[in-house]
Amino acid sequence: MTEQASSNDGKRPTLGVAMVGHAFMGAVHAHAWRSVARFFDVPYSPRMVVLGGRDPERTARAAERMGWADSTTDWRALVERDDVDLVDICTPGDTHAEIAIAALEAGKHVLCEKPLANTVEEAERMVEAAERARERGVFAMVAFNYRRVPALALAKKLVDEGRLGELRHVRAAYLQDWLADADAPMTWRLRREQAGSGALGDIGAHIIDATQFVSGQTITGVSGMTETFVRRRPSENAADGMEDVTVDDCAVFTARFASGAVGSFEATRYALGRKNAMRIELNGSKGSLAFDFESMNELWFHDGTEGETTGGFRRIVVTEPTHPYIGAWWPPGHVLGYEHTFTHEIADLLTAIDAGTPVEPSFADGLRVQRVLAAVEKSAENGSKYIEV
Amino acid sequence: MTEQASSNDGKRPTLGVAMVGHAFMGAVHAHAWRSVARFFDVPYSPRMVVLGGRDPERTARAAERMGWADSTTDWRALVERDDVDLVDICTPGDTHAEIAIAALEAGKHVLCEKPLANTVEEAERMVEAAERARERGVFAMVAFNYRRVPALALAKKLVDEGRLGELRHVRAAYLQDWLADADAPMTWRLRREQAGSGALGDIGAHIIDATQFVSGQTITGVSGMTETFVRRRPSENAADGMEDVTVDDCAVFTARFASGAVGSFEATRYALGRKNAMRIELNGSKGSLAFDFESMNELWFHDGTEGETTGGFRRIVVTEPTHPYIGAWWPPGHVLGYEHTFTHEIADLLTAIDAGTPVEPSFADGLRVQRVLAAVEKSAENGSKYIEV
Amino acid sequence: MTEQASSNDGKRPTLGVAMVGHAFMGAVHAHAWRSVARFFDVPYSPRMVVLGGRDPERTARAAERMGWADSTTDWRALVERDDVDLVDICTPGDTHAEIAIAALEAGKHVLCEKPLANTVEEAERMVEAAERARERGVFAMVAFNYRRVPALALAKKLVDEGRLGELRHVRAAYLQDWLADADAPMTWRLRREQAGSGALGDIGAHIIDATQFVSGQTITGVSGMTETFVRRRPSENAADGMEDVTVDDCAVFTARFASGAVGSFEATRYALGRKNAMRIELNGSKGSLAFDFESMNELWFHDGTEGETTGGFRRIVVTEPTHPYIGAWWPPGHVLGYEHTFTHEIADLLTAIDAGTPVEPSFADGLRVQRVLAAVEKSAENGSKYIEV
Amino acid sequence: MTEQASSNDGKRPTLGVAMVGHAFMGAVHAHAWRSVARFFDVPYSPRMVVLGGRDPERTARAAERMGWADSTTDWRALVERDDVDLVDICTPGDTHAEIAIAALEAGKHVLCEKPLANTVEEAERMVEAAERARERGVFAMVAFNYRRVPALALAKKLVDEGRLGELRHVRAAYLQDWLADADAPMTWRLRREQAGSGALGDIGAHIIDATQFVSGQTITGVSGMTETFVRRRPSENAADGMEDVTVDDCAVFTARFASGAVGSFEATRYALGRKNAMRIELNGSKGSLAFDFESMNELWFHDGTEGETTGGFRRIVVTEPTHPYIGAWWPPGHVLGYEHTFTHEIADLLTAIDAGTPVEPSFADGLRVQRVLAAVEKSAENGSKYIEV
Repeated sequence: MTEQASSNDGKRPTLGVAMVGHAFMGAVHAHAWRSVARFFDVPYSPRMVVLGGRDPERTARAAERMGWADSTTDWRALVERDDVDLVDICTPGDTHAEIAIAALEAGKHVLCEKPLANTVEEAERMVEAAERARERGVFAMVAFNYRRVPALALAKKLVDEGRLGELRHVRAAYLQDWLADADAPMTWRLRREQAGSGALGDIGAHIIDATQFVSGQTITGVSGMTETFVRRRPSENAADGMEDVTVDDCAVFTARFASGAVGSFEATRYALGRKNAMRIELNGSKGSLAFDFESMNELWFHDGTEGETTGGFRRIVVTEPTHPYIGAWWPPGHVLGYEHTFTHEIADLLTAIDAGTPVEPSFADGLRVQRVLAAVEKSAENGSKYIEV
Repeated sequence: MTEQASSNDGKRPTLGVAMVGHAFMGAVHAHAWRSVARFFDVPYSPRMVVLGGRDPERTARAAERMGWADSTTDWRALVERDDVDLVDICTPGDTHAEIAIAALEAGKHVLCEKPLANTVEEAERMVEAAERARERGVFAMVAFNYRRVPALALAKKLVDEGRLGELRHVRAAYLQDWLADADAPMTWRLRREQAGSGALGDIGAHIIDATQFVSGQTITGVSGMTETFVRRRPSENAADGMEDVTVDDCAVFTARFASGAVGSFEATRYALGRKNAMRIELNGSKGSLAFDFESMNELWFHDGTEGETTGGFRRIVVTEPTHPYIGAWWPPGHVLGYEHTFTHEIADLLTAIDAGTPVEPSFADGLRVQRVLAAVEKSAENGSKYIEV
Repeated sequence: MTEQASSNDGKRPTLGVAMVGHAFMGAVHAHAWRSVARFFDVPYSPRMVVLGGRDPERTARAAERMGWADSTTDWRALVERDDVDLVDICTPGDTHAEIAIAALEAGKHVLCEKPLANTVEEAERMVEAAERARERGVFAMVAFNYRRVPALALAKKLVDEGRLGELRHVRAAYLQDWLADADAPMTWRLRREQAGSGALGDIGAHIIDATQFVSGQTITGVSGMTETFVRRRPSENAADGMEDVTVDDCAVFTARFASGAVGSFEATRYALGRKNAMRIELNGSKGSLAFDFESMNELWFHDGTEGETTGGFRRIVVTEPTHPYIGAWWPPGHVLGYEHTFTHEIADLLTAIDAGTPVEPSFADGLRVQRVLAAVEKSAENGSKYIEV
Repeated sequence: MTEQASSNDGKRPTLGVAMVGHAFMGAVHAHAWRSVARFFDVPYSPRMVVLGGRDPERTARAAERMGWADSTTDWRALVERDDVDLVDICTPGDTHAEIAIAALEAGKHVLCEKPLANTVEEAERMVEAAERARERGVFAMVAFNYRRVPALALAKKLVDEGRLGELRHVRAAYLQDWLADADAPMTWRLRREQAGSGALGDIGAHIIDATQFVSGQTITGVSGMTETFVRRRPSENAADGMEDVTVDDCAVFTARFASGAVGSFEATRYALGRKNAMRIELNGSKGSLAFDFESMNELWFHDGTEGETTGGFRRIVVTEPTHPYIGAWWPPGHVLGYEHTFTHEIADLLTAIDAGTPVEPSFADGLRVQRVLAAVEKSAENGSKYIEV
C-alpha cells in the first residue's frame, strides 16, 4: 500500500487505483471509487491515479470528467505503475484475461467486470493467476455487482438462516428490450469475438451468479436453447452497411442445482417493455423469495411457517438500518439506485484486502459461471441435451 | 334436441344435460349449467337431467345439492338416456376416453375436462370419435376453461389484431403450493394410472393450451425436465401407511413455436406461497402482454409503438362492456371470479352447437396438448433431448 | 316460515322471497338467492316467489330470466302475500322507507339495499319499524355487501384480535370514473329527489360503513367538502335536452373515530381510470391493513411486531379454507368475484333468522351511516365546519 | 464568480460553496455537490469551501468526511467569506430566515432546505430579501427536492402538455412510520420552537409543493384537522425524563385548487409499515397520474383517450434517455435513488444562475407553501373551518 496521506482522512492509508475502460461500466465504477470512503468506514482512502483507454483524447476528457488524475492509452504501462495498487478492468470481455493476469503478476489487486472472460480456458488461466497472486497477498474480484443489491444480500441472509428450508425451485429471468427494434445498430456486444456470447454472457451471467449466490448452491447441469432473432444489423464497419450478428439474442435453459432443486432461466434483450427486469424467485419447503431489479429496493418474502390465514408474500422495503449496506445511507424509504451496488462492492473489496480475508465473488466464482455459460452453449448446439457442469 | 319447454323461457328449446363426476370440477360445472341462461342469450335452456357418480348415496346427495333431477352410478346407462343431449365429463383422466367415446357414439354432445386423456393413444381415439360424431351434427369440446378468462380472451384478440407484431418470447408458469408440505396425504392426482402425469398434465396442460390459444401458434418441439421431490406420501390405501408417488411434482421445459418464437414453461405444486399463479407473458416485435390468474381481472399490455417517454405496461382492468364476456355481467370494476370461466365456456358451447360452427377448444386441440405433454415426458426421460411434437 | 318442502332439499324448510327492483342490484341479488343453498349449509331453502317492478312486461321478462315464479307491479300486494316470508328491496333510495316499513309491519323479514334511506328522518322511522318487528321475530338487514368481501371480513377479524393495536389512521376512498365524461347522460342517480345524494350516498356510504365495520369504531365527527363538476347533462326528460345535476359529483371529508383515530375519506365518480377502487387503509400502533376492491381477493397486512428486517406489507391471497366464507367455494387461488359478497350476505341473513341472533348490518347500522352522510353534507354547506355525528 | 480554475475542468469557472448543517440533509447535499459536475454539463465547477456547524470537532470531522476544505462554527463569518459564492442551508427551520437573509445581503446565492421557514412572517422577510438580491443578480432557491424526481418532472410535463385535460381531483399523502413506536425518543423535529410544526411542515410541505408544481395550480383554501397521538416522549433534556411533544403527529386536510379541483391531503409519521410513501394522484377529464416515492422510478399514467378496451394505468419506468434528467445517468431500467433528486436540483440551480433565468422553486414558492401550512393550522384550531389561502 502506498504510504502517502489521504486527502480526506489523515489516518487511513491511500490505495492507488487505475481503471481501464471508460464507457458505461467505467462511469459507474468511477462514481463508486469517488464515493466509497464518504459513506463507508473503509480501511483505505482510494486515490484515483490513472485511467486507461484506446483513444488518447477521449480518455483524457473522460479522466478529467470522472476525476482520474492521469490518463493513458497503454494499459501495460498502467499496470506497472508504482503508484497503482489496484487495477479495475471495465473493458469488453476479450481483453479481461490479458489485462487481469498482467496486473496480478505485477502485484496489483484486480477488480474485473463480468463475465470473467469469453471462454472457460481464459477464465481458468485467470483463476490460476489469481491463486498465485493470493499467496502474495494480492486479491482478485469479479464484479457481479448484483450480489450487493441490499435486497439480494438480504435474500442470501434469509437462505443462510434456513428460512427457506429445503430448496425446490429456482426461476430466474433477465429481461431487457434494447434489441427489440430490428433496426437498432450493431455494437461490440453482438460480435462473438469481442463479447464471447450475447444475452447469455452479458445478462444471463448475472442471474447464474446471483442464483448460485443467494441459494448457496452450484448449478450441476443444464439443458439450453438459444436463438438469434435478428441476424444482420446496420453497421458502419460493413461494406454493404449490414453486419452479421454472431451471438445469441436470447438463451433459455433449465438447470439442476446441487441439492436437487430445479431451475428455469431466461436471458433476452427482446422482452419489449422490460427495461432491466432481473427477476429471481426461490421456493423452498419453508419459505419463498422473489425479486425484480426494476423494483430494486423491494424483496418479497413468504414465510411458510406463518400459517395460511395470515401468510402471504410480504414486500420488504429494504431500506432499514438493519438491512445490508443501508446503515451507510439514508433513512427508511429513501430508496437507493443501481450505482450503489458498485459502491458496496468496492467497500467490501477494500475491507477484504485489509483483513486478508477471501474476496467474493472470486475469480473462481467467475469461472463457475463461465462453465455454466459454456454448458448452456454446448447443450444448445447438441439438441438441448443435458450437459453436466 | 328435446322439444319440451324450458322452465325459464318458453321460447328456447331445452337441452338435457348429464354430468359424470361431482367433486371440485363437478361443482363448478353444475354452477355454470345453472347460471348460463340467466346471463347469456344462449340458444338452449339447459335442463340438468342426471348426475353420475360411484357411490350411490353420495351421488344422490350431490345431485340434490347441485340441482340435478336424478342420479346414477351407471354411466353407461346415463349416456344412453333419451332425455340427455349432452354429457359433461368431470372424472379423472383415466376414464375420459371410454365415457366420451361412448357418449359420442350415442349421439350426445360431449364436454370433457382436461387433460383430454392420459395418453396420446387415448386422445387420438377420442379425436376420431369426435370427427365421426361431427358428421352427424354432434359436438365435442375439451374444457380448457382458461381460454374464457376475459383477460386471456382479450389477449388473444390483441394478438390477432397484430398488436404484438412478430412473436419472440413466450414464458409461462403455473405455480401452486398444495404439495409443498411433505406430509400432505396421497391423492389420485399423484397416481400415474389415474392422473396420467402430475403437475405436467394437471396444470402444465393449461399453460400449453393457453399459450397456443393466445399466440395462435402451435408448439413444434420441447426440451423437458421433471422431478418428484416427495416420493412417498401418507396413504390409507397402503399397508405401511405410505404410498409411492408415481407422477412428477414439477416439470420445466423450453419450447419452440411454429413462427420461431422461444418458450419457457414451468408447472409445479411446490411454489410455496403461490396459490394459483397461472402466469403468461408474450413479447413480440411491437408489443407485449402479461397475465397472472391470481389477478384474473387484469391484463398487462405494453404497446411498443407508444414511444419510450409515455410507454409502459398498462394494467387493463378487464371489466368493461367492450371486453369479452363482460357485457353479461356487472359494471366496470365489479370483478369476476374463477367460476365465470366455466359459464363462458358453456355459453360458447351452446352457441356453437346451435350454429353448427366449430367448437373450440376441440378434441383435436386437446390432442395437440397431449402430444406436447408426451414430448415433454419423452425428453425428460432422454436427458432433456429436444423432441419434435 | 312456510312449511312446504324445498325443491332441492327435503329436510330444510323453504323461505319465500319477494324482490322489488330488477336492475343491476336486482340481478345480483337474484343470483345470490339462486346460489346460496347450493354452496352454504343454510337453514332455509329460498323459494323465489315474486318479483316486483314498475313496467309489467319488463318485470315479467326479468322474472323469467332471473328465476322468479311470478311478477307484479304492485309492491303493496307483494308484501302482503302469504307465501312471502322475506322482502328484498333493490329500488332507488327514495322508496326504501315506504316499502321496508310496510313489509316489516306485514311481518316479513327485510333485506334493503344501501344507503338505507335518502334522509336521516326516513332512516329513523325504518329503525323504529325494525325494532318493533324484531320483537315479533322479524329481521331487517341493510345490504352493505362489502362487509362480506372475504378480505374485509378477515380484516375485521385481525382488528378484533388486536393485531393492529391502537388505531391511529383510517384512510378510505371509493373511486369510479363513469361520470368523467361530461357528455355521459343523466340518470336517476344524479337527481337528489331519487338518490338522496350523489357519490356521497352511493359509494361514500360503503366506505363509511366498511371502515366502521372493520375498525369496530363509530365516526364521531366530520368536516366535509363536496363538488359538482358537471352541472347539466343530456337528458330525455328535459325540454331543452339538458337536465340539472342536483347531487354531488364528489365528496371529500376528514373524520374522527371514537378512539381518537383520524380519518380521511373520498368518494368520486370522476377518477379517470379507476373503475371500482374501493380502498381502505388502517394504521394502528401494532399493525396496518390495506385493501382495494379492484383486487378483491387480496388483503395487505403489515405486522409491526415482525421487526424491521423481515417486516413488510404481506399480500394475503384470501382464498384459503381458513378464510371467511371461502370454505364454501373453490381451492386456494381460485379467486372469487363481486357477486359472491351477496351470496355471503344472504347466507348470514338466513342463519341469523334461524338462530334468532342479531343481523348485521342492521337498520341501526344503516342509520349510523346516514347520520355521517348528513353530517358531511351539513359541514359542506357550512364552510367545512366540523360537525359532530 | 471566483476566477480560479476548477480541479476537474480547466474551462468552467468554479463556484465556491459553503454549507451550514451536516446531519441527514447535509450529507445528501454534500454528495450532490461532489457529483453534479461529474454527470451534468453544468456551467460551474463547484468548490466545496467550508462547512458550518455548532460543535467544532464534529463539524471538522464531518467536513473531512464529506469533502469540505474547511469548517467553522461561525455561520456569520462563513457567509461573509470572499471565496464563498453560494450558501447551502441545511439547518432546522428556526434558523433559516436569519442565515438566508444574511447570506443574500452578503451577495451570496442561497439554497435553503424546506420548509422555507417556521412562520409566514419569516418567509415573507426571506422573500423580500430574495427579491432585493435578485436585482443584484443573486439567486435563492428552496430545496423542494421532489420536484426533481424524474417521474414527477415527467408528470408535470404531461400536465403541461394537456394530457390530463381539466383537473378534477388531487389526492396526496406522505406516510412514514418512525414515530409509530410511542417509546421513540424526543427529537428537535417534535419541538414547535425549532421545527415550526410536525408532520405538517416536515412532510406535508413536500406534498403541498409537489401537487402545486405538478398541477401548475395553487391551493386556494383548506379545511384541516391535526392530531398529536403521543403527547410526551423520553428525553434527555427533561428533569423527569419525559418531554412534551409540541407539534402535530399528523395532519389531514381537504383543499380547493385555483381551477376548482378538489384535493385531499394527509401527512403522518404513524402509518406503520409505510417508510417514505409520498403518494400523489391527479385525475383530470382526459387522463390521470399516480406516483409513490417508495417506487420512485415509476410513474403511472392513464390516458383516457385510449378507449376502454385497451386503456389502463400504465407503469412508465422513468429511466429512458428521453425522461427528465435521465440522460446524465445509466441505461434504461438501471434505477435511480433518493439522492439523485438533489444532484438534479443543484444542476438546475447552477444552470439558472449562469443563465440569469428564474430559479424554481423560488422563495416565493416556499412562501406559498408556508401560507398553506398556516391556513391548515388555523383551520384545525377553528373547528376545521375552511380558510382561504
